[in-house]
Amino acid sequence: MSEATDGAIHPAAALDEVVHQRARLGVLSILAEADDADFTYLRRTLGLTDGNLGRHLEVLVDAGYVNLRKGYDGRRNRTWASITPRGRQALLAELTVLRALVAQVDAGDGTTER
Amino acid sequence: MSEATDGAIHPAAALDEVVHQRARLGVLSILAEADDADFTYLRRTLGLTDGNLGRHLEVLVDAGYVNLRKGYDGRRNRTWASITPRGRQALLAELTVLRALVAQVDAGDGTTER
Repeated sequence: MSEATDGAIHPAAALDEVVHQRARLGVLSILAEADDADFTYLRRTLGLTDGNLGRHLEVLVDAGYVNLRKGYDGRRNRTWASITPRGRQALLAELTVLRALVAQVDAGDGTTER
Repeated sequence: MSEATDGAIHPAAALDEVVHQRARLGVLSILAEADDADFTYLRRTLGLTDGNLGRHLEVLVDAGYVNLRKGYDGRRNRTWASITPRGRQALLAELTVLRALVAQVDAGDGTTER
């Protein structure tokens, strides 16, 4: 079993799927820029359905990367999400790997020029 | 249903999961730099199991992003993978979105300094 991970050297091997997954990366990126964001804003900005966003927020909460706060806006229930220090750290780690990956491909066979 | 995608403006909304998924992004990045790579090299470099790499290669082949070539190296069966022009285009699109996403977070609330 351990053989499968021996000698893993590509930046992609260091990516954490909890953070890397498209919708979750979007949520963390948005929350890193804002104090908090409400469910409807996240859903619209990321082009997700209610159920899809709900599931991804659950994964982020379970990982300790996001906090949820429920309340009322007039008569409507609303949910606000915010990033935790641990979530911010995980996003930073992701961005560091993404930069390395982009740089590695750019330094390759001229992919950017084709 | 269309409401869910109205007004999607975040770069993450433009990411294609076929290319964005960690292992597949790794495969395409490696193949963009090399003429071809064999199954064992990909598996080791990306820290994947046989089954895992096999499934991700299947997704990439089905999308028309990767070609597989089977042959022999002495007495051993080997499989070489190469990126198609369409796969290269998809990788370029992914890298463009990743750059935009990294730049947007960097331009935000000072995430990189915390």
